[in-house]
Amino acid sequence: MDFLIPESLAPKLEAARAFLIDEVIPVEPDMLGSSDFYAVEPKLKELRSKVKSLGLWLPQGPEDVGGLGLSVLEHGLMSEVLGYSPLGHYVFGCQAPDAGNLEILHQYGSKEQKDRWLGPLAAGEIRSCFSMTEPDTPGSNPTELACAAVKDGDDFVINGRKWFTTGADGAAFAIVMAITNPDAPKHGRASQIIVPTDTPGFELVRNIPIMGHAGSGWASHAEIRYDDCRVPQKNLLGGEGAGFLIAQERLGPGRIHHCMRWLGICERAFDLMCQRAVTRKIDGDKPLASKQTIRNWIAESRAEINAARLAVLDAAWRIDRVGFARARVEISLIKFHVADVMMRVVDRAIQTHGALGVTSDTVLSFFYVHERGARIYDGPDEVHKASVARRILRAYEEKA
Amino acid sequence: MDFLIPESLAPKLEAARAFLIDEVIPVEPDMLGSSDFYAVEPKLKELRSKVKSLGLWLPQGPEDVGGLGLSVLEHGLMSEVLGYSPLGHYVFGCQAPDAGNLEILHQYGSKEQKDRWLGPLAAGEIRSCFSMTEPDTPGSNPTELACAAVKDGDDFVINGRKWFTTGADGAAFAIVMAITNPDAPKHGRASQIIVPTDTPGFELVRNIPIMGHAGSGWASHAEIRYDDCRVPQKNLLGGEGAGFLIAQERLGPGRIHHCMRWLGICERAFDLMCQRAVTRKIDGDKPLASKQTIRNWIAESRAEINAARLAVLDAAWRIDRVGFARARVEISLIKFHVADVMMRVVDRAIQTHGALGVTSDTVLSFFYVHERGARIYDGPDEVHKASVARRILRAYEEKA
Amino acid sequence: MDFLIPESLAPKLEAARAFLIDEVIPVEPDMLGSSDFYAVEPKLKELRSKVKSLGLWLPQGPEDVGGLGLSVLEHGLMSEVLGYSPLGHYVFGCQAPDAGNLEILHQYGSKEQKDRWLGPLAAGEIRSCFSMTEPDTPGSNPTELACAAVKDGDDFVINGRKWFTTGADGAAFAIVMAITNPDAPKHGRASQIIVPTDTPGFELVRNIPIMGHAGSGWASHAEIRYDDCRVPQKNLLGGEGAGFLIAQERLGPGRIHHCMRWLGICERAFDLMCQRAVTRKIDGDKPLASKQTIRNWIAESRAEINAARLAVLDAAWRIDRVGFARARVEISLIKFHVADVMMRVVDRAIQTHGALGVTSDTVLSFFYVHERGARIYDGPDEVHKASVARRILRAYEEKA
Amino acid sequence: MDFLIPESLAPKLEAARAFLIDEVIPVEPDMLGSSDFYAVEPKLKELRSKVKSLGLWLPQGPEDVGGLGLSVLEHGLMSEVLGYSPLGHYVFGCQAPDAGNLEILHQYGSKEQKDRWLGPLAAGEIRSCFSMTEPDTPGSNPTELACAAVKDGDDFVINGRKWFTTGADGAAFAIVMAITNPDAPKHGRASQIIVPTDTPGFELVRNIPIMGHAGSGWASHAEIRYDDCRVPQKNLLGGEGAGFLIAQERLGPGRIHHCMRWLGICERAFDLMCQRAVTRKIDGDKPLASKQTIRNWIAESRAEINAARLAVLDAAWRIDRVGFARARVEISLIKFHVADVMMRVVDRAIQTHGALGVTSDTVLSFFYVHERGARIYDGPDEVHKASVARRILRAYEEKA
Repeated sequence: MDFLIPESLAPKLEAARAFLIDEVIPVEPDMLGSSDFYAVEPKLKELRSKVKSLGLWLPQGPEDVGGLGLSVLEHGLMSEVLGYSPLGHYVFGCQAPDAGNLEILHQYGSKEQKDRWLGPLAAGEIRSCFSMTEPDTPGSNPTELACAAVKDGDDFVINGRKWFTTGADGAAFAIVMAITNPDAPKHGRASQIIVPTDTPGFELVRNIPIMGHAGSGWASHAEIRYDDCRVPQKNLLGGEGAGFLIAQERLGPGRIHHCMRWLGICERAFDLMCQRAVTRKIDGDKPLASKQTIRNWIAESRAEINAARLAVLDAAWRIDRVGFARARVEISLIKFHVADVMMRVVDRAIQTHGALGVTSDTVLSFFYVHERGARIYDGPDEVHKASVARRILRAYEEKA
Repeated sequence: MDFLIPESLAPKLEAARAFLIDEVIPVEPDMLGSSDFYAVEPKLKELRSKVKSLGLWLPQGPEDVGGLGLSVLEHGLMSEVLGYSPLGHYVFGCQAPDAGNLEILHQYGSKEQKDRWLGPLAAGEIRSCFSMTEPDTPGSNPTELACAAVKDGDDFVINGRKWFTTGADGAAFAIVMAITNPDAPKHGRASQIIVPTDTPGFELVRNIPIMGHAGSGWASHAEIRYDDCRVPQKNLLGGEGAGFLIAQERLGPGRIHHCMRWLGICERAFDLMCQRAVTRKIDGDKPLASKQTIRNWIAESRAEINAARLAVLDAAWRIDRVGFARARVEISLIKFHVADVMMRVVDRAIQTHGALGVTSDTVLSFFYVHERGARIYDGPDEVHKASVARRILRAYEEKA
Repeated sequence: MDFLIPESLAPKLEAARAFLIDEVIPVEPDMLGSSDFYAVEPKLKELRSKVKSLGLWLPQGPEDVGGLGLSVLEHGLMSEVLGYSPLGHYVFGCQAPDAGNLEILHQYGSKEQKDRWLGPLAAGEIRSCFSMTEPDTPGSNPTELACAAVKDGDDFVINGRKWFTTGADGAAFAIVMAITNPDAPKHGRASQIIVPTDTPGFELVRNIPIMGHAGSGWASHAEIRYDDCRVPQKNLLGGEGAGFLIAQERLGPGRIHHCMRWLGICERAFDLMCQRAVTRKIDGDKPLASKQTIRNWIAESRAEINAARLAVLDAAWRIDRVGFARARVEISLIKFHVADVMMRVVDRAIQTHGALGVTSDTVLSFFYVHERGARIYDGPDEVHKASVARRILRAYEEKA
Repeated sequence: MDFLIPESLAPKLEAARAFLIDEVIPVEPDMLGSSDFYAVEPKLKELRSKVKSLGLWLPQGPEDVGGLGLSVLEHGLMSEVLGYSPLGHYVFGCQAPDAGNLEILHQYGSKEQKDRWLGPLAAGEIRSCFSMTEPDTPGSNPTELACAAVKDGDDFVINGRKWFTTGADGAAFAIVMAITNPDAPKHGRASQIIVPTDTPGFELVRNIPIMGHAGSGWASHAEIRYDDCRVPQKNLLGGEGAGFLIAQERLGPGRIHHCMRWLGICERAFDLMCQRAVTRKIDGDKPLASKQTIRNWIAESRAEINAARLAVLDAAWRIDRVGFARARVEISLIKFHVADVMMRVVDRAIQTHGALGVTSDTVLSFFYVHERGARIYDGPDEVHKASVARRILRAYEEKA
């Protein structure tokens, strides 16, 4: 057993951390203030150039598309660093949902698909979106999708309604989950299909207001109507009926990525809480840190963050070592556990800031608002708990 | 002991409840969607007229200014009904901070002050604000204010910085807490002074973005700079150095009002949670309500709401019976207890709604965002807990 | 609405409280130290005589058997006072399970049954037990009992296994729940039958060790085997197949009784916590009460106790007013809610006492050990939550 | 980073685990039933012989006294395995307080002290105790001890009162913390002195009843009066005034040992919970495991145990790598965090067992009762939280 950060990775993490603090955080207020992605995009473009020149671009990406080729564990550690700012992942080119789409294209894309989409995506020249969740079918069970793609000549004709398609606003293409084989066994009904967003019938209905913020560009979640949306069959990704399987594979590393990002958020909230505690005066000249309740929060937060972090790294290590399928229990466990820790730590940090904590004068309220979804997307807590327990109980049933 | 709602009040509550559901809730989306108070104000004006014609206007207001003259307990029950919608209190004329200001003016205002401000305020023709909290002094301790009013000729000249002055945007006047007697014992240093908002030196710096929403009009919280702001000394309310005392008295019934409003929010969230549970299908055709976790949340929420509600009514009953000063322990207890219950119930209701819960397609995310402050304003949880414990422990110290 | 304790009851409560403190608490160490009921029984007998001479005996009992005839609400308030000591209910003659058995006998007993059992029970000359829970069928569902009573001539012949038959050790008779009509609809299969404990075939297997304490006498919970145990059919209580119905009716007031007893325990734990806080010195000469964490616990405990208490009194008031059947939701809610509050308050009080808290030098560890069952007996939390949610959701289903 | 169990250790852990299950657990009921250590001691002696013949004796002990010489991390993993049974550590010779005393003697003992005490202790022929905690001074602050040792000729004369001296009943000697240098700086006032328990003036007042169980032998916690108890000055351990320092060093590895033992308890409780879930039938023939609440508990428990476990192993790894002093934050964090996880997991396992859970028919109630102290001994949660926060905040103060 060895808990040391890999030596080859450490300097990259340090460089990324320094860049975050020196260059990215100063840009945050532009974003937090406006909710308008396009207003801040030019600055982000500049930052991306600097990241490229530092040799830190696309940390999780394969080397053959210009990435650093980090392992799941290594990218997890990088994701933690980047999560310290809501802009971190975007600036380093590994933001959801593009990171996952890049992975899918790299692994399942045809030569033609790669030529057209993979290069520009890896270079950060275009954005993409992943269109799976539907308003009227339970997102917790992707085998119950309603959106359907029907063959017609050489094309698929897609009809359906999706929402929470992150970053659809301004994306060049969507990867759409649609039922192509309704009579197959339920895990073999859906396929993933590339749909350029300028295809007739691809209608962005609205950017859904999340806690009152519709956002824009990458920082938005769209409702989309597919209305006789016609694309060539060669836009299929990885085989008919393989949609569910690909989605699953995409989620494994994706969850490490998210969990470590959340831990980066925890670190930011923790730092803000501690800084507030030592600088805010109460009762005359005593710092807020003199209060035992604040100390309790700091101690409890530190204990919870440390433990949760190691659990995620352990799951990442398992994926690297034995593959996603044999790390499922661990991945489900961290999904709900870390989201819970994050929300608690953010909440304590807000309370430590008093009235300031609910304003947009710190990044805390941004996390409070925009990360509440963490307990819901990629499977709500309750679904993960039920499914992981079922897996765990199997061993006991066999012995019973 | 008798837990029955007073017979004379019951029909008023029923009428208010029906009006809320039939007329007020349909207007909510205008408000939730835009955050622009002025866009929705005309509709609210109409609703207010109807409330007046129903004889339900100004429920907490004294009868001599056109109110219903309800007791603290009775208005608590009304406030619960109105809290069911974020617009309820405004439409019925009992919204903070005007309700409290009206009370102060009624009790402490000079004839001249009443003539000028009280009538229009009671009629809903103007709005007001209460300017106490400061960014750089602990709101938890109003004896440490920095804002000062210095006598100069017949005037006060006020200098200082305030924030979280709710509804300052568009208000006709502010009641400002300022230090007038810096050398007095610390509870006797501050006074309350009426400052018309068109006074030179009254500068509304910004509407503070709360969780990203700056809001406007009544639905905003301003940062204000008082810069050599000069008002006549006759604008003083209730005597020099009486500011703290008046603020305290105002807070007693104010907390009942808030706590019962929060319980109204609980009822709304609870209803939405239950409605979602019976209508949302999962696993084919089973309702979400078939899930034990959802049932746990419903049962726990109901138990917590019921118990918290009775505790608030008991505190209100005590205020009516023995006065605010002898109900302090109860009032502090409900302040943090009910805020906590509310946030938990709202959180469960959001989780029950899945992705829908974080959108603005329901009112839940509005509560999640705009009521987080409940654990902070009017004294953060931690301050109430410490002070109530001190009071409780006194009896034990005497016997020790 | 009126939260005042009934004037006629107040002096009785005060007298009971004084007696508890002056006479009952001094006897506690005998009991806590030995776990041997018989060793302390003589002293308890003396105390009972004094209670009788004070006119406080059998508070919940009907007046025609020598009780005070208190309403459910009134007895609830008395039960709170008595719960302050683990010996309180016994000393006043209203301990479980005798209180419930007395109620059943009074309501359903034949003249002969009353003559033989009711008088001595009401006088405290004999004890009884209630034999329902079985080790191998879920206690949460009394319709699934295995113990059966088969008619043979004029007799019932009972076979089965029971456990958690409280106070069987030394009891004069048991009321046994047994299946008599296996083919009836499931709520009509069981009957209640009086079985004198000296009947051949009534075998007390053991007093079950609870957290390591087998106890004895009234303070024990027995495992019992009914082995061809033969009693006359006239020992039937209240009609064949009525067992479930009677059990339900018995549980309504019983839950008020328990919940208020638990609140009495809360008050004891709260007092001990506060007394410790003001007397224990830390860091030189500062009292433990100077610590904010301790103050938090005191404030939170007080808030939770107050709220829970009012919820129980409200449920009691409803039973008195509209009957048990229409107060079911409230009764289920308080069952799990108050048990939870109690365990939390006791736990905080223990922690406040440090090492002393886990010893038997205070009564806290007794509560910690012997009241953990509160979340299980009379229906575990989970069963109450599920069933109360089902009831609540019905109204929403109808409107959906 | 590498989360693999050291290859050389794995077979030892497996052998220990198998022995626990096959040989130790069958003996548990003797102990749980009687609370009489002496009754079960002969069987434990036999088991110890077998452990020795398996080459697993004294896992944490240095090789020169016949131990396995495991590192802190390695012994942590062993301690987890042994914690699965309350008898595990005793049977393998690494039970508290002897394990810690052995360590002190090995490091600080004079040749004479070692000759007399270390050999027999390492061989399991005698037992010892550690006499530090006092009833009237805060255990949280060992610098405030009252027990004093005064020089008189060649002797120390010790006077004072101690309690929670674990295993004093039947021990051959005590290591006593006593003030020898009252005028020194506060961390240099106390010394550790060996006191054979047959020394006149060493009076075992009582085995303190813990939750009603006084216990005996190793399984007891004594109150001790030192009454002019005279021992030669050469019984001093490691220098005058070094008592506090030695105690601190002893606590570092001791906390790893305890935390991993608690995690072993978690595993036992978790296994029992899962086994119960798959075997207990409810609602006819469905297993309890079909209930979502049970699944939630299983999932949450697994997540919490996994994360907590890694946090402890990380702390152990740090001690091995950089020493106790630089791992203080981590050690304090796990102390309160793991104790909390343990109590929650045990509580859920009890609730899963229903009435059975509070009986002594499973080991769960033993854990519930005897491990509640984990949140108190070796520093209560609150003290650890406050002190760890102070350490953490230092870095922020420097930068502020």
